Amino acid sequence: MFSKVLVANRGEIALQIIRSLQEMNIKAVAIYSTADKNELFVKQADEAVCIGEGPANKSYLDMSEVISAAVLTGCEALHPGYGFLSENAEFAELCESCGITYIGPKYQTINLMGNKSNARLTMKNSGVPVIPGSDGLVDTAEDAVKIAEQIGYPVMLKAADGGGGKGMRQANNKEEVLTLFEQTQQEAKLSFNNGSLYLEKIIEKAKHIEVQVMSDQFGNTVYFPERDCSLQFHHQKVLEETPCRLINDNQRQQLGEIVVKACQEIGYLNTGTFEFLMDEDQNFYFMEMNTRLQVEHTVTEEVSGVEMIKTQIKVAAGEALPFKQEDVKATGHALECRINAQNPAQNFTPSPGQIKKLNLPMGTLGVRIDTGITADSFISPYYDSMIAKLIVHMDTREQTINKMKRLLGEFEIEGVKSNHLFLRDLLSDETVENETFNNDYIEHSFFKRWVSDDTK
Amino acid sequence: MFSKVLVANRGEIALQIIRSLQEMNIKAVAIYSTADKNELFVKQADEAVCIGEGPANKSYLDMSEVISAAVLTGCEALHPGYGFLSENAEFAELCESCGITYIGPKYQTINLMGNKSNARLTMKNSGVPVIPGSDGLVDTAEDAVKIAEQIGYPVMLKAADGGGGKGMRQANNKEEVLTLFEQTQQEAKLSFNNGSLYLEKIIEKAKHIEVQVMSDQFGNTVYFPERDCSLQFHHQKVLEETPCRLINDNQRQQLGEIVVKACQEIGYLNTGTFEFLMDEDQNFYFMEMNTRLQVEHTVTEEVSGVEMIKTQIKVAAGEALPFKQEDVKATGHALECRINAQNPAQNFTPSPGQIKKLNLPMGTLGVRIDTGITADSFISPYYDSMIAKLIVHMDTREQTINKMKRLLGEFEIEGVKSNHLFLRDLLSDETVENETFNNDYIEHSFFKRWVSDDTK
Repeated sequence: MFSKVLVANRGEIALQIIRSLQEMNIKAVAIYSTADKNELFVKQADEAVCIGEGPANKSYLDMSEVISAAVLTGCEALHPGYGFLSENAEFAELCESCGITYIGPKYQTINLMGNKSNARLTMKNSGVPVIPGSDGLVDTAEDAVKIAEQIGYPVMLKAADGGGGKGMRQANNKEEVLTLFEQTQQEAKLSFNNGSLYLEKIIEKAKHIEVQVMSDQFGNTVYFPERDCSLQFHHQKVLEETPCRLINDNQRQQLGEIVVKACQEIGYLNTGTFEFLMDEDQNFYFMEMNTRLQVEHTVTEEVSGVEMIKTQIKVAAGEALPFKQEDVKATGHALECRINAQNPAQNFTPSPGQIKKLNLPMGTLGVRIDTGITADSFISPYYDSMIAKLIVHMDTREQTINKMKRLLGEFEIEGVKSNHLFLRDLLSDETVENETFNNDYIEHSFFKRWVSDDTK
Repeated sequence: MFSKVLVANRGEIALQIIRSLQEMNIKAVAIYSTADKNELFVKQADEAVCIGEGPANKSYLDMSEVISAAVLTGCEALHPGYGFLSENAEFAELCESCGITYIGPKYQTINLMGNKSNARLTMKNSGVPVIPGSDGLVDTAEDAVKIAEQIGYPVMLKAADGGGGKGMRQANNKEEVLTLFEQTQQEAKLSFNNGSLYLEKIIEKAKHIEVQVMSDQFGNTVYFPERDCSLQFHHQKVLEETPCRLINDNQRQQLGEIVVKACQEIGYLNTGTFEFLMDEDQNFYFMEMNTRLQVEHTVTEEVSGVEMIKTQIKVAAGEALPFKQEDVKATGHALECRINAQNPAQNFTPSPGQIKKLNLPMGTLGVRIDTGITADSFISPYYDSMIAKLIVHMDTREQTINKMKRLLGEFEIEGVKSNHLFLRDLLSDETVENETFNNDYIEHSFFKRWVSDDTK
């Protein structure tokens, strides 16, 4: 096992990784920007190295600074967390070339799955159902029209290296494809330094269903029960839950076996998540794979009892997976709400600032709060605006939602705006209650009603 | 179901009861003393009534004030919590006579079990193994000597109405019985207004093992897996865990069936806990029954998934128990540490005061913090000094202890002294690790070493 690991992230996830390392008797080294010097994760680490200034490209995204910190402090491994450099193949390769174990998949795999067009083809070849679309990249608007007319409108033009909702345009007919093709290419080039596009049919009335896997170096891969992350706004997940009650055990097992087979074919290592669309007839279509830990891994930890970060560290250190597929049992229902410093009434614009008061409703059975902030934290404008993840795990979905609503009502923050009352209203919504929402439900329906409701 | 319930307590347990009521859509009315007016439980309640001044006998122990608050606010029921009036038969009777449902056993049962000598006889008659001793009260020192010589020294002289470590004296021979009998009578008279004594053999090298039960009005009683609360100091529990790994499933079931039978014979209602001594040969001896919720019910909630306060409210409202004995499944291991504002280096003397800084290490799988305080709370000298209960629930005892040690290391408080580092040292102790401790381990062994260890 490692004796010292660099935590190449900040805030809440850095703190959780540090805690996991410390529980395993491994020294944790934090990196931090000058903007973060008073944050909890820096204090909690066994060592901490300042790697630059507030803006992420001057610190957390500066590969050579991050790697230098690992080398200089004698770290044997590095955990990238999520965001920042966590899906950067070049960074993972740099770790390897510096003799530092990257706690994640091999860089070749990150590279393969990072290119969404290649990922789609690879998955298709491994027997994973994919969204109908182009077989690889599309070079011209005219080719795009041809494919679109084969698979049917509406279609999505997508950047091969895209992500986070950028580099995607919907086209509903031939004219729109012709108009939007070049625009999307330009945006992709600007955002991702790669103008390559591919094309997919838009699956309407779909849910976002994802399956997390964990693999060791000995060819063992297990899958975990699916998460439903359909409640999104501007392609950002708002709340996540597991399991999805619309999916039965047979479907769950089938989907799981498909992704496990794909992992074994591509030699997948460590954890990752397959994101699918599920249409109204419960057909699944592969969208993309996240080759890292996800924010919402917490709900899977709750129902399975598996600590994901510790398992990641173990398999990265060359240990075999400590459990088999048949050991992965899911009990009850778990829900995560992302509390962000943002103003939901103004399209969720970030609301950074100095926290003046904070009441986190911890306590009672089934409640977990993962946060990196304290009552005197400053929510920096440089980074994402997450304040805390509220996680509830109870026997049934009804109990889980009921308790979460109570927590959200009890939650209090002053100094920054927060989305907690939006989340409470969302959980009181009938469509959310009866699980009939799709992944555009908030954006196309709930939010419009909510924002114009003066009684709230 | 009730629509409004009075929470006849303060602090952490009042807050948990209020939260439970609110999750059940029942209005919660808090009572508070002037010393508590800014506390979290008062803010969280739907209504709050000031019932007097800081000293408990001028507020939380003032029966007529408490009942008046319930009547005036239109409460249909009252939850006593633990401590204060929670084992006072007169108070429970007063509730009944005012038409307020007491969320607990019938007052006759509280009365029966509150007299330790009667409780012992009742249990003996129901087939519960009791500590060898007098059959009822002992009137004279000479009678006490006779019985002591039959059952063997050392013996304990105990006040019939005793509790909380008061009104108990150990006698190791005839002379000591003769000397101590009158002293103990006097102390019992002063403390409990009842000088009656009984006598029990002292079970040496014993563990404190207890079994919680829950009963409804239809004669259904279930037991929960035992808790080991042997780690005590001055008869106060320091940390509690479930299950006790020395007890096998057969013993667990036998013990459970014995207490269920006793409950059914005495018509026990709501929750309660049978406290036993377990000697080195794993013989069990009934000590007493707590006719209320206990502080450490949290660990049982964790392993069983049953929310105790909600279940109490349901059965008090006349509902049948929502689960049967075979539904009560215990998974994993749970541990509770009581963090108190006290100075362990000075015999755990209370350390009340204004909190200046507070870092509660919430987050990661299996962590729960039940607390009623915030970063700006004042720990009042009028009440017990509990700051928070740290609860960990993991698959194994080793994982549970390991995580708890990390939490205790991360916990931070300024403004008052706290026992958290004492608890961490205790959990690092070999005897605690291998579970070979008895109920006098801290007092007779660990504490002496710990307090004289200058390296800590």
